[in-house]
Amino acid sequence: MREVAVIGTGATKFGELWEKSFRDIGITAGLEAVKDAGITSNDIDAVYIGNMSAGRFISQQQIGALIADYAGLAARHIPATRVEAAMASGGLALRQGFMAVACGIHDFVVVGGAEKMMDVDDTEAIEILASSADQETEAFFGATYPSLYAMIARRHMHEHGTTREEMAEVVVKNHFHGSKNPKAQFQKEMSLEAVLNAPMVAEPLGMMDCAPLSDGAAAVILCPLSRASEFTDKPVKISGTGQASDTMALHDRKDICIHEATREAAKSAYKMSGREPHDIQVAEVHDSFSIAEIMAIEDLGLVKRGGGAKATKEGVTKLGGRIPVNTSGGLKARGNPLGATGIAQAVEIVDQLKGRAGLRQVKDARVGLTHNVGGSGSTAVVHVFEAGW
Amino acid sequence: MREVAVIGTGATKFGELWEKSFRDIGITAGLEAVKDAGITSNDIDAVYIGNMSAGRFISQQQIGALIADYAGLAARHIPATRVEAAMASGGLALRQGFMAVACGIHDFVVVGGAEKMMDVDDTEAIEILASSADQETEAFFGATYPSLYAMIARRHMHEHGTTREEMAEVVVKNHFHGSKNPKAQFQKEMSLEAVLNAPMVAEPLGMMDCAPLSDGAAAVILCPLSRASEFTDKPVKISGTGQASDTMALHDRKDICIHEATREAAKSAYKMSGREPHDIQVAEVHDSFSIAEIMAIEDLGLVKRGGGAKATKEGVTKLGGRIPVNTSGGLKARGNPLGATGIAQAVEIVDQLKGRAGLRQVKDARVGLTHNVGGSGSTAVVHVFEAGW
Repeated sequence: MREVAVIGTGATKFGELWEKSFRDIGITAGLEAVKDAGITSNDIDAVYIGNMSAGRFISQQQIGALIADYAGLAARHIPATRVEAAMASGGLALRQGFMAVACGIHDFVVVGGAEKMMDVDDTEAIEILASSADQETEAFFGATYPSLYAMIARRHMHEHGTTREEMAEVVVKNHFHGSKNPKAQFQKEMSLEAVLNAPMVAEPLGMMDCAPLSDGAAAVILCPLSRASEFTDKPVKISGTGQASDTMALHDRKDICIHEATREAAKSAYKMSGREPHDIQVAEVHDSFSIAEIMAIEDLGLVKRGGGAKATKEGVTKLGGRIPVNTSGGLKARGNPLGATGIAQAVEIVDQLKGRAGLRQVKDARVGLTHNVGGSGSTAVVHVFEAGW
Repeated sequence: MREVAVIGTGATKFGELWEKSFRDIGITAGLEAVKDAGITSNDIDAVYIGNMSAGRFISQQQIGALIADYAGLAARHIPATRVEAAMASGGLALRQGFMAVACGIHDFVVVGGAEKMMDVDDTEAIEILASSADQETEAFFGATYPSLYAMIARRHMHEHGTTREEMAEVVVKNHFHGSKNPKAQFQKEMSLEAVLNAPMVAEPLGMMDCAPLSDGAAAVILCPLSRASEFTDKPVKISGTGQASDTMALHDRKDICIHEATREAAKSAYKMSGREPHDIQVAEVHDSFSIAEIMAIEDLGLVKRGGGAKATKEGVTKLGGRIPVNTSGGLKARGNPLGATGIAQAVEIVDQLKGRAGLRQVKDARVGLTHNVGGSGSTAVVHVFEAGW
């Protein structure tokens, strides 16, 4: 198996991109990554796209070929593949692109993620999102993700003494980080009071505990590590990849305060990279809800079990803390265009390891991690990245 | 890169499966393949699923995790990934499963394909299908696949003298083959007159020139060739894989009588396997329309350019002919549950090479090919299979 490097990154601003179409944003992110890598489109051997639901948001399927076509790659007939696992679609696409390079079938692969969510009304968007929960036992009966994560939050409060204020600290931190990211959907800080006083969505989760609906796209360029030095002085190696599944329905889990899929995916990625949680210097985790980040940092082993809320309040995961988490602003402040999210996480970690993360730079970071979740924890994918120089 | 074998196959009957749900058929096909391989579910390392549009047909996304869960694999948290490229979703899932084994990340992989199309009315089904054409320049303006392929057929008639009768011969042949397949949707022969007298859908394509809407699922088990002999005396090797893209819209092609994506995918698969078209002894090709099979056998090099219609009329592609094509009945008679189709093709070729294709057995077949197309030719994927003993 060949070692795989990331040699370029690109992303659109995330947010309400009314003036741009799905194909526009996909191509913008891809071309930025191509330019950043210093390759040309003639070098590209394959395209992978993470996308959750263009078939419903914009009535367009087969979007691998669509993006390849509108990026001018149809003339070269390169393969283009879409991968989907709800909100983990981007992370899974990255893993498939990794395998394509690792096995030797392709050399230069663009892995993109894109979603255009604002072209439908909010009610329809919520229904589309919920269709990735178990339709027969959850979505059909009206369960939405805020309601499922509200149950998780309640149980976490009961088990570990987590408070609404501590959950709100996740939001305050991620908005603080987002304020330093020129591509974030929300670039302003938010006070603890503002988070706590926001309207309730599903108690104990208020509006500000939930990641927004977003449009956006992100892309990375992969190639064999052995060739990366031709294009960059600072290749970033993907040293570990792990993916795992769990039950679709929340009620089938033994302990809803644990994402077993995250734990198993992390175990695989740590093992493959030879790293352990204490080696990770910066992480992008799936904070679709404030409680989700608290669970994630516990399940990934970045903090101790049940200690996620306290660690957040103590600043452990804030820029300058022991292990900065979601320096991009995370899903909460950077935005959450579903299929793009897993790739945007990789973009942030690569930019951090290359030392070009601007005002949100984690000093001397050489090992980072991404963590992308589908559904209420039914799919999880974890990647470990390392400075390859 | 490790060599990859198929050690088991399974499939549901294709057709109008009103009494079964999507999850039922996915699991039925998978378990049959597991049993056929002689492994247990504890051996499985990963699941790949080809599916075009469960998100629209049954409002269910994240179906990789769904199938893994309902197959009882959630407790082991194995990774499950859905791949989509319209009607080529199954073929692409097979290719991703191949890479996962080839690169060494997984040993035993189930690759399934499934689609449940009958739970929506016909008008909605047609709209869902069309959403994999270019929405902005084709589908939005009312173009459907029959109308796009009708233009291809018209042009093929003009360029190569192909006649309606010759196209109908594809249908007669595939129904003849389907009559020998106990899992086919249509198991009765059809006369040339019946095909020609069927109501028009989009001239010159009548109802019988078009593949049906179907429910169904199929699955194969992959493992490293080096381990295949532990499970079977007759492992089938996947010796070549190729995938390619083309423009989304038909009007952007230089020559609509050629699927460049098919030609490029075949070129890659032939090169990787060291085989040439004349080595292929049995093939499953994408006959979504009668004209599509004629193009396919030309583009794959199985007959000469422009000679597809004549070769069909002469019986070259019929059981007993030089190169039997679609011995399963093809999309036309076996049925076309979109995401399942590419996997069902692999099931048929593996069963042929193992000498267990019953009444439709091609004598002494040792090299076979599958060809799966998305859209009007925007995606194509080709695999070469060989008897591995």
